[in-house]
Amino acid sequence: MMLESSKDGAAPNHVDQKLTPGQSSRFKKQMEFILEVDKLKHVLRQTILMDRSRRENSAEHSWHIALLVPVLAEYSTESDIDMFHVMKILVIHDLVEIDAGDTYCYDDKGREDQARREQIAADRVFGLLPADQATEFRALWDEFEKRETAESRFANALDRIQPFLHNYFTDGQTWQANHINSRQVHERMLPVKDGAPDLWDYVNTLIADAVKKGILAE
Amino acid sequence: MMLESSKDGAAPNHVDQKLTPGQSSRFKKQMEFILEVDKLKHVLRQTILMDRSRRENSAEHSWHIALLVPVLAEYSTESDIDMFHVMKILVIHDLVEIDAGDTYCYDDKGREDQARREQIAADRVFGLLPADQATEFRALWDEFEKRETAESRFANALDRIQPFLHNYFTDGQTWQANHINSRQVHERMLPVKDGAPDLWDYVNTLIADAVKKGILAE
Repeated sequence: MMLESSKDGAAPNHVDQKLTPGQSSRFKKQMEFILEVDKLKHVLRQTILMDRSRRENSAEHSWHIALLVPVLAEYSTESDIDMFHVMKILVIHDLVEIDAGDTYCYDDKGREDQARREQIAADRVFGLLPADQATEFRALWDEFEKRETAESRFANALDRIQPFLHNYFTDGQTWQANHINSRQVHERMLPVKDGAPDLWDYVNTLIADAVKKGILAE
Repeated sequence: MMLESSKDGAAPNHVDQKLTPGQSSRFKKQMEFILEVDKLKHVLRQTILMDRSRRENSAEHSWHIALLVPVLAEYSTESDIDMFHVMKILVIHDLVEIDAGDTYCYDDKGREDQARREQIAADRVFGLLPADQATEFRALWDEFEKRETAESRFANALDRIQPFLHNYFTDGQTWQANHINSRQVHERMLPVKDGAPDLWDYVNTLIADAVKKGILAE
């Protein structure tokens, strides 16, 4: 489960104390975090890009769903939610994968110890930040995982719908390669019903059409 | 200047009208936009990743600087600014590159017609959205380019500092390959002085250190 994300960079990507003159240790910690999160660009997901040329990485995915916030905000279940909060959740939600790797959503075996691996990763990655920011970022990630707030439910809906669109519009290549059926996809997409119900009909239309076309097993 | 971004995807990445039953043409336009922006993942920048394994693409860059908002917000020149607005600017600021490509910041020839190319690109890419959102997104991009608001000045500072950190922490590989000197870097980084003055000292320390180490020409 460590994938490409675990490889060490060749670069001396740490901040020398002498390079932060007049700066606090707070600033040094922020810089260390900024350099470290670059590794998310090496974490490959199962999703393939729309032109099918290669797999998507988690940094690209995180950008795409952050962009979905202003595009799809009107479909949120609750209209009075803090979209800045949603966007912050989305840009940090996959950072644990730097250590824990991306666990494919239909990989039941990988998912058994996913929570434990990701908790350890969250401790380390968010722990690079100054204490107040470490606490803030960790709370955002916990909120995303628990799905108890309107913001986290909408964030989860966006996180599910983007790879689903990639799957459908690349003729289900990833579904077929992993022997996924429509019931699994339906269950996986339930957070859309919860966080963005107006998009749920569309999801079901695409699932039915995918089955009809033979690109997704019934 | 068209780079990889201009290649057509093999996938049928358009939204069939029959797939949006009960949905408005508004929704169809939003879906078309969501599928189209995937192409930003193919636009390569000059910046290389921290481990030097490959060049960064503009989607990864956009994610990285959006994440910098909650990390570095305290260094903004003005404390009373709308950080959600900054984040929206950053996730859309490079979308014009889907058509116009990434113009290297020190490429004087490429920059001559950059504005014209990017205006045409903005018309097409943002024009995929429903009219109200097209107007909103175009205004965000214009604001970023003009640097007249506190939000756009902070956004520009973050957009400059991230590739600068990559350059410094990969021993100036991109600077050397493109024969860039410290005066050019200094000038390029001026928006940091403007939008995040507390980071300006740090930038100058790294520039001086890069010259001293011989990884950046004086």
